[in-house]
Amino acid sequence: MADVHLPKGMRDILPQQMILRQRVISTIQQVFLRYGFAPLETPAMERIETLTGKYGDEGDKLIFRVLKRGEGGQQGEVDQALRYDLTVPLARVIAMNPQLPMPFKRSQVQPVWRADRPQKGRFREFYQCDVDTVGAPVGLADAECIAVVHDCLLALGFTDFTIRLNHRRWLAALALAVNAAEREGELIVAIDKLDKIGRDGVSRELLGRGFTQGQIDRVWELLDGAPLAGSEQALAELDQVEALALAMGVDRQRLLRDRTLARGLDYYTGPVFETVLTDGGLGSVSGGGRYDGLIGMFCGREIPAVGVSLGLERLIVLMEERGMLGGSSSATRVWVTVFSDETLPASLAAVSAFRQAGVPAEISLAGGKLGKQLKAADSRGVPFAVVIGPDEAAAGTVKLKDLRSGEEQVLSLSLAIDQLGAAS
Amino acid sequence: MADVHLPKGMRDILPQQMILRQRVISTIQQVFLRYGFAPLETPAMERIETLTGKYGDEGDKLIFRVLKRGEGGQQGEVDQALRYDLTVPLARVIAMNPQLPMPFKRSQVQPVWRADRPQKGRFREFYQCDVDTVGAPVGLADAECIAVVHDCLLALGFTDFTIRLNHRRWLAALALAVNAAEREGELIVAIDKLDKIGRDGVSRELLGRGFTQGQIDRVWELLDGAPLAGSEQALAELDQVEALALAMGVDRQRLLRDRTLARGLDYYTGPVFETVLTDGGLGSVSGGGRYDGLIGMFCGREIPAVGVSLGLERLIVLMEERGMLGGSSSATRVWVTVFSDETLPASLAAVSAFRQAGVPAEISLAGGKLGKQLKAADSRGVPFAVVIGPDEAAAGTVKLKDLRSGEEQVLSLSLAIDQLGAAS
Repeated sequence: MADVHLPKGMRDILPQQMILRQRVISTIQQVFLRYGFAPLETPAMERIETLTGKYGDEGDKLIFRVLKRGEGGQQGEVDQALRYDLTVPLARVIAMNPQLPMPFKRSQVQPVWRADRPQKGRFREFYQCDVDTVGAPVGLADAECIAVVHDCLLALGFTDFTIRLNHRRWLAALALAVNAAEREGELIVAIDKLDKIGRDGVSRELLGRGFTQGQIDRVWELLDGAPLAGSEQALAELDQVEALALAMGVDRQRLLRDRTLARGLDYYTGPVFETVLTDGGLGSVSGGGRYDGLIGMFCGREIPAVGVSLGLERLIVLMEERGMLGGSSSATRVWVTVFSDETLPASLAAVSAFRQAGVPAEISLAGGKLGKQLKAADSRGVPFAVVIGPDEAAAGTVKLKDLRSGEEQVLSLSLAIDQLGAAS
Repeated sequence: MADVHLPKGMRDILPQQMILRQRVISTIQQVFLRYGFAPLETPAMERIETLTGKYGDEGDKLIFRVLKRGEGGQQGEVDQALRYDLTVPLARVIAMNPQLPMPFKRSQVQPVWRADRPQKGRFREFYQCDVDTVGAPVGLADAECIAVVHDCLLALGFTDFTIRLNHRRWLAALALAVNAAEREGELIVAIDKLDKIGRDGVSRELLGRGFTQGQIDRVWELLDGAPLAGSEQALAELDQVEALALAMGVDRQRLLRDRTLARGLDYYTGPVFETVLTDGGLGSVSGGGRYDGLIGMFCGREIPAVGVSLGLERLIVLMEERGMLGGSSSATRVWVTVFSDETLPASLAAVSAFRQAGVPAEISLAGGKLGKQLKAADSRGVPFAVVIGPDEAAAGTVKLKDLRSGEEQVLSLSLAIDQLGAAS
């Protein structure tokens, strides 16, 4: 038998993990729906031309390419690739569907693929949870992106988070003010590392990139709050977005202006935001911003857009670490045992009745001694078992056993259904 | 601007379609859960060795291969591929996870990819909805596969379906009885086409494959019900599975023995079943069976398994054609208009209150005249709108407008929330 394994960076999500994961995704999707973000799915494969040139040279190298197959395709020919994020596919959808009413609000929860070097906890396939609004100017749509993240995190049970807010044009004004307008990208990339490498690290990086000590000193002055000429409109937009977000119920304590916030992606053009946990270690659990240029790359006309992405995989890891993923890891509420061939019909009737009533129920498929059956149920995390022996079968009752407390009661099937239905 | 399009055989699922689709999937998953099938997800990519040799030569040609990327990978090197179904990945999961408790019941709802020639309504990416039980002998587990399909179809609103049932070893006995044991595969492939090409077509095909007229006549006799020596155990198993399925609540009218049912896949070894709609045209909406050999290809020891797959894409097409996909195609229940800058805070408070109460709500992002805002809401299928003019803002009330009937009422925000919450 051959050695059986998965490709590098791939993983299975086994049932115990999937049940918790589905709860997290469902909570997020409920909040997305409350905000009126309508669900969209795009195919795993896009044409290569659609993807390349959007994620920078480094990103392009990480795109998984798929061999052309089927009629007309030659072995080795490549014309499609796996999606790398959900934003570029959205831009393509907008270009291909001029009938969509604008502003267009969509949510998308799907896996993406990146040929990154696999690391602990990082995979080459992972889910993104995005909401974006296309076709709305700066203002309400940006505030909604902040508010929806705020509400998602609360709904998941997080309380210790801060949403940081900045404006890309403020950073552009910063670059201009230190006579480095043409090197804005480099400046932003360096500042973006502040959390990871600290002030000294950023200063060293800027020196290494040929910025003068005078320029660097001025950068810190401005980041520390010195007035910055030419940033007035950006700041006014931030004021507006912040006020709207607060009016939407975002907690003032959780919203923080941060002049050092840059967000790595090339395509942001306006307000940018990210969410960090007070005690969540390095890195953000959500990030986004306004990108008024990207959609136009596909449409031939400028269409404004703003969006935000929740870091699902990171959130799940944090929730596991913190013990926030409560609830049973088994979806099955009751395990119906099989005492003998003679009582099998009664057990079948019971399991069917539970299912009809919407109570997730299993019946012992493997048979064996009663004790073994109860142990199988318990070890899977099923909270209740039903035993129907000859006495119960004759009396038309069932024995309902709480597998945690060991408590047993003999009652009618319909009462047992009521009891388990109510407790779920 | 470049021509923007999708790779061949790929499609987007736009929001209107997605909302209906999610309802269908959620209904199916609820039934899967009721039966205790726990959710599993496997990665899109598997190693090529895992996939090839399981689907026959034709199948192997349809597997999408992915170029190796990242460290150590050379351009053009291929070692992974997109999953072709959900059954082979399950077998791999079983082999890699000996800790999983047996019998192992799992559901899996994920897309698969096949480089088929694209046709109307057939795509190269499509969802499969599978349940399988691994590690249980013939009997209850097979009956559950039949019962879960039965309940899924009822839950979706189908009533005119028949579940056909046969046994692979009955077909093996048939081949033996006409002295064609070594050509069982060819015989099954031909019989499997009965629905599509009729008796004459099957006879012609068998003749073309070198079967004698005598053999063919005997095949029809046996298919028509003549006693078949050597099929006793297979028939006893079918009797058992059928009785168990009925005891689980499957409607007797909907269960039909069909000696001509073959199911195409190589790997079936026991009972096989498929579901057809009385008026659903050609083809099945679900199919499955027992495959006691496949898992062993990965594990090195025989592990019995039985499973069934619902044809999600076909079911959705049928439900659309039949107008069974009721309900609004907008998830948003209420659209809050913005009368003026002065009343914006009241509109924001309203939309936030709806959302907090779990009522999906949108606010006009684009502004513009009130009539235009109401039209935007109506054209998206949103059932209600809220107008807060200066009078309502001053009085602390809202005007709630039913966009279908045109009816309006002025009431407090909390009453409006109650009304929409209750109606949803």
